[in-house]
Amino acid sequence: MTTSVGTPTTLDLGPATGLSCRECGHRVPLAAEFACGECFGPLEVSYDFGAVRREDIEAGPRSIWRYRRLLPVPSDVDSHPNTDPGCTRLVRADRLAAELGVRRLWVKDDTGNPTHSFKDRVVAVALAAARTLGFTVLACPSTGNLANAVAAAAARAGWESVVLIPSSLERAKVLTTAVYEGALIAVDGNYDDVNRLATELAAEHEDWAFVNVNVRPYYAEGSKTLGYEIAEQLGWRLPSQVVVPVASGSQLTKVDKAFRELGELGLVEPTPYRVFGAQATGCAPVSAAFKAGQDVVAPVRPSTIARSLAIGAPADGPYVLDAVRRTNGAVEDVTDEEVVEGIRLLARTEGIFAETAGGVTVATAKKLIETGQLDPDAETVLLITGDGLKTLDAVADRVGPRATVAPSAAAVRAALGF
Amino acid sequence: MTTSVGTPTTLDLGPATGLSCRECGHRVPLAAEFACGECFGPLEVSYDFGAVRREDIEAGPRSIWRYRRLLPVPSDVDSHPNTDPGCTRLVRADRLAAELGVRRLWVKDDTGNPTHSFKDRVVAVALAAARTLGFTVLACPSTGNLANAVAAAAARAGWESVVLIPSSLERAKVLTTAVYEGALIAVDGNYDDVNRLATELAAEHEDWAFVNVNVRPYYAEGSKTLGYEIAEQLGWRLPSQVVVPVASGSQLTKVDKAFRELGELGLVEPTPYRVFGAQATGCAPVSAAFKAGQDVVAPVRPSTIARSLAIGAPADGPYVLDAVRRTNGAVEDVTDEEVVEGIRLLARTEGIFAETAGGVTVATAKKLIETGQLDPDAETVLLITGDGLKTLDAVADRVGPRATVAPSAAAVRAALGF
Ligand SMILES: Cc1ncc(COP(=O)(O)O)c(C=O)c1O
Ligand SMILES: Cc1ncc(COP(=O)(O)O)c(C=O)c1O
Ligand SMILES: [Zn+2]
Ligand SMILES: [Zn+2]
Repeated sequence: MTTSVGTPTTLDLGPATGLSCRECGHRVPLAAEFACGECFGPLEVSYDFGAVRREDIEAGPRSIWRYRRLLPVPSDVDSHPNTDPGCTRLVRADRLAAELGVRRLWVKDDTGNPTHSFKDRVVAVALAAARTLGFTVLACPSTGNLANAVAAAAARAGWESVVLIPSSLERAKVLTTAVYEGALIAVDGNYDDVNRLATELAAEHEDWAFVNVNVRPYYAEGSKTLGYEIAEQLGWRLPSQVVVPVASGSQLTKVDKAFRELGELGLVEPTPYRVFGAQATGCAPVSAAFKAGQDVVAPVRPSTIARSLAIGAPADGPYVLDAVRRTNGAVEDVTDEEVVEGIRLLARTEGIFAETAGGVTVATAKKLIETGQLDPDAETVLLITGDGLKTLDAVADRVGPRATVAPSAAAVRAALGF
Repeated sequence: MTTSVGTPTTLDLGPATGLSCRECGHRVPLAAEFACGECFGPLEVSYDFGAVRREDIEAGPRSIWRYRRLLPVPSDVDSHPNTDPGCTRLVRADRLAAELGVRRLWVKDDTGNPTHSFKDRVVAVALAAARTLGFTVLACPSTGNLANAVAAAAARAGWESVVLIPSSLERAKVLTTAVYEGALIAVDGNYDDVNRLATELAAEHEDWAFVNVNVRPYYAEGSKTLGYEIAEQLGWRLPSQVVVPVASGSQLTKVDKAFRELGELGLVEPTPYRVFGAQATGCAPVSAAFKAGQDVVAPVRPSTIARSLAIGAPADGPYVLDAVRRTNGAVEDVTDEEVVEGIRLLARTEGIFAETAGGVTVATAKKLIETGQLDPDAETVLLITGDGLKTLDAVADRVGPRATVAPSAAAVRAALGF
């Protein structure tokens, strides 16, 4: 699994010191590796953070690079062309809280990122690491949002890109990848087929950085910035509960990791928090394992409108179960009907239009409250990670103009019922 | 034109002290008025800014409210639910600069706002002022982006909304207004018909704040924040040239006003700058007047894919001409074909997917350079004010996957031409 692509002997990847196996602890130097040579477990970045102070972060750029001292990226990362995502809104959601019957609720609105999903975060970190590792092509298999983010970041950096998507993907996600003019290939198959294909291609093309395959250890760290930002935006403290959508499961484990690191580094008080996972019932392998009390995640064949979460064989599923159980959280799942209602509820109460993945998060939060799993009196953050404009079909037959009228004031008033 | 809607005797609208007529200078107290009682000229907000320091702004929230000391909003504006837009990316665009043959180019990417256009800025200010003025319903006629922003802001604030759109509007703009569940009414007619209708309704419904009609003086000031942000993001200095899309013309005049104010307040060195306007040839009344050397703008019947800019009778057209001529700028227009090429050029070089209005800006900048009107050696900022996801049809028949293949590595390689 090692690639030798121009890997210099000492790499500047900031505080990152090496990769270590999540299963057996085996350590290897920083390189484009992702699976342990001893046990095939996933590799994760190890760090030597040294002292990191709030002031250093606060004085940094208004993007994820303010957290570069906590990421596997070079110290001059913000001097290279990248999409510079992050620093999205944390919205106090009192109207949604009232509808859900909770006391203190926040929405982390990651639709404000350059390509309108949290994937810009992970891709920006992957691009920065891949540049240092000597790659020249940015690639991925994707359920859609990652495709957008990879194609955009490659365009901005002047890199070639190779993006593989299931041929059934939403039109908006296809067009807003294709417009950046990298190599976009639609594959007849579902995401898990496309992912297998990417793993095969990554082994054969040494200069292609498949962000979520051969540079996955670096890429995945980008999701930590969601956790860092939430804590900083709350005034350097941790929320009590957080609800995170789960596809491969990476994001959830990294938000958990971010909260732990902040506590360990003394950047926040290490107060207890609970992590909750959200899935669509049509693709709920992690929720099923959680409910069955299992440690392994049995793959499923996805069938849900939440296509960005439609990963039937989630790579980080077992680690999601660990994080959720360790923090006293849960994983729940909701029907496609509930997903649409979740999208509409968030839009109506807070003016935020989320994609289906956001509908999953909101609807799951509602279900967790109704079933007594989420404490309505504890401060809660919902992660809205993608944009409604990319999955318009989910709401297209439910919402529309109240009426189409002739251009007269009387006609407007009649339509409004006056 | 006065409304008495709960207008208290002294209003806290921050530094705003009154309204004054742009034509005859007649002054009236702060109220929901928009046209001069003496001459029917447009009213504009007057201020007493006092001393405003960079540090005060820099210590403020990461939204347009950091500039509240320069806006007609109450001093506690950020304690009321609003969409809190602004602080979007200013992107150094070296790859686009190289293609255009200019030395130092920036793109102000306002697609990062809550509903992905600059309209969130003006609506946020209108909502804050309307609340203070005693209104309870937020309303507008819109070419699309404003509809999204008004419906979202009203939802977040818990206000009713009444949004009027031309029935021909893009599907994405219709759905992403309707999802917020205010009263959305499609009107058989073009924008200018819808606008006339709104003016009529505003006179009849005293509690409806039509953001761009009866509270327009407040609303329009929101666009100043684009100018403030650009200057702050450049390290508190003005660019030499700025290219701004023109529909009603309000935004362009307010970016100019922001630059002037910053100089007058000593927040930046008052260096000279040139303001350029961009229109689509299918709706180019201001460009036509500029080229003909006229002071008045003859209305046109719009026919262009840049529907968000399709205002045939632009209210602020004459003031655009003033600003452009005073600063030694110009107004230019480009064909729909060029608009699409502009969208693709920006996407391909910088990874930013703009709507048709952004295509107008990029293509106009290109034409201004080619015709020697814009100085390629002077630092230039392009305003990208809306999002490509809302106008997918503009590119739908030009871009797409390179191929659709079976799930095999060989098929992918064949599609890539290996
Ligand atoms: C919008 C959105 N939210 C959440 C996720 C989940 O990410 P992860 O694979 O890290 O669990 C995805 C994955 O594609 C996504 O597109
Ligand atoms: C995306 C976009 N850019 C620019 C404009 C121009 O705004 P103005 O009417 O202030 O000229 C509009 C107006 O609707 C718009 O939607
Ligand atoms: Zn191992
Ligand atoms: Zn007057």
